[in-house]
Amino acid sequence: MTGEFERIARLRELFGALALPDLGIGDDCAVLHDPRPLVITVDASVEGVHFDRRWISARDLAARAVEAAVSDLAAMGAAPGDLLLAWTLPRESPDELVTELAHGVLRVTRRLGMRVVGGNLSAAPVLSLTTTALGRATGPSLRRDGARVGDVIAVTGHPGAAAIGLRALMAGRGDEGALTEFVNRWRSPTARVDEGRSLVSRAHSAIDLSDGLAQDGSHVADASGCALLIDADRLPALPGQHEAARALGLDPTALALHGGEDYELLASGPPEAFDERWTLIGEVVPGAGVLVLRNGAMAPLAALGWDHFTAG
Amino acid sequence: MTGEFERIARLRELFGALALPDLGIGDDCAVLHDPRPLVITVDASVEGVHFDRRWISARDLAARAVEAAVSDLAAMGAAPGDLLLAWTLPRESPDELVTELAHGVLRVTRRLGMRVVGGNLSAAPVLSLTTTALGRATGPSLRRDGARVGDVIAVTGHPGAAAIGLRALMAGRGDEGALTEFVNRWRSPTARVDEGRSLVSRAHSAIDLSDGLAQDGSHVADASGCALLIDADRLPALPGQHEAARALGLDPTALALHGGEDYELLASGPPEAFDERWTLIGEVVPGAGVLVLRNGAMAPLAALGWDHFTAG
Repeated sequence: MTGEFERIARLRELFGALALPDLGIGDDCAVLHDPRPLVITVDASVEGVHFDRRWISARDLAARAVEAAVSDLAAMGAAPGDLLLAWTLPRESPDELVTELAHGVLRVTRRLGMRVVGGNLSAAPVLSLTTTALGRATGPSLRRDGARVGDVIAVTGHPGAAAIGLRALMAGRGDEGALTEFVNRWRSPTARVDEGRSLVSRAHSAIDLSDGLAQDGSHVADASGCALLIDADRLPALPGQHEAARALGLDPTALALHGGEDYELLASGPPEAFDERWTLIGEVVPGAGVLVLRNGAMAPLAALGWDHFTAG
Repeated sequence: MTGEFERIARLRELFGALALPDLGIGDDCAVLHDPRPLVITVDASVEGVHFDRRWISARDLAARAVEAAVSDLAAMGAAPGDLLLAWTLPRESPDELVTELAHGVLRVTRRLGMRVVGGNLSAAPVLSLTTTALGRATGPSLRRDGARVGDVIAVTGHPGAAAIGLRALMAGRGDEGALTEFVNRWRSPTARVDEGRSLVSRAHSAIDLSDGLAQDGSHVADASGCALLIDADRLPALPGQHEAARALGLDPTALALHGGEDYELLASGPPEAFDERWTLIGEVVPGAGVLVLRNGAMAPLAALGWDHFTAG
């Protein structure tokens, strides 16, 4: 088996095909120079917690981990820049695992013009990918505490689609024709970078849907000191989404509200802030938390979503 | 047990005692603004790989993880700035573990005037602490590829001392009087920030000793295209260091050359670059790799040190 430093050398070769920063992989630190405010986040993807390796290839997994981290940049309206990758691998992992993971990362960095500027390889009982993503502000950053009463609420994509795919995989039904599109949504999310950037100086708040509309919406409501009123009938759905949820014995609306890992964006602002890539699903009202209008009745929504220490 | 978001709120409270950046913990990303070049690194500390929890308290462990990451900044001559902490915890971990870890981090951030600006909490089979450390260049960054034939080679501290402590803990002898000082060196390393900064614009190369003098020295030699000649008789030792190594049945010189986790700095440059905090241990000569002068004979040294995928 190849040792740590040979593996790092191979990664440097793979990632070095991109333009290098002032000083990139191979020294103690990367050195970067950009006069714009730095926007930075870190996100972890852990085997047995965030994924099961029977559900996803190494390439998709690595791409997914980067998209999830970049999604945080998108939610702030930042331009994606550089990545640092801290990976842990079981000691017996074959060399191809590292190469496959690297190719998954390259798929995203090439699309977004990002660079891998550093990282860390370590042994561990399970595979885990911790991604530090750096972006640059192109204007005032979108925050979660800016929602104002009277704002409309908008989302990208189709919340709940990824959750259906995940539930299909968990039930061993990921190969069923009506479910494969949803499995792809879970396996291969796309960070909404352009959509986030389109909101800069226009929207009042934004957040990405990693833990579900209810959970992430409640963060916006709490930080902003107001309530989000969501109209369940306006939640956008892919063709066949409701049927797919029901085929799994699940409530499509509950999945759209509580299912996470879509990496779609939820934002608030004046209606003119949002173009055709967004669906308006409600408004910001006085109060607290997330309220849902469903079948003509309004009900408060528990901030249920994924929680690492109370879930399961 | 407390959930993920309560834990994050508690951490925000603990870490918020420090001055906040433009936008800190609690949004999707941190936003930072500093016109100086950014110096950035990521480092992981994994239970069962880098430490055994019987060997170290949670506070010392967290402080150690931060010192290890900051040591990379020190090796570049950068001024420490901000931290992002990605922690994984076994699901059944008590709340105090998070608080104890946070207090360990605060010990270091208070000493160095650093800020915690973001992070990620996740469940996992083992405790792991992945630290992204950001610094700012205060001049040209020290690199590992700058060593020149004729440079003297210098180190801080006492390489091998931490390795003795680790071996004592592994042998269940960490409480023996003659070994406790060395155990402390392993448990509580101090990143050589001031020493690194003192080299900016003066030394030609620097690296931190995380994997041992032989391994890290070979990175400098390889990157610079020359050889490092180390005089084993000049390796600095703490009082009792040789005796402590021998009490464990180990060769003191081998530990000083191959033992890692000292987080001391190894640098090369003109003699006048180094003050009394440094010990001169050799010189840069034509050739490749690390050569050791011992008992009057010169021998090439295998780049042996810690390797995650070939060790054990």
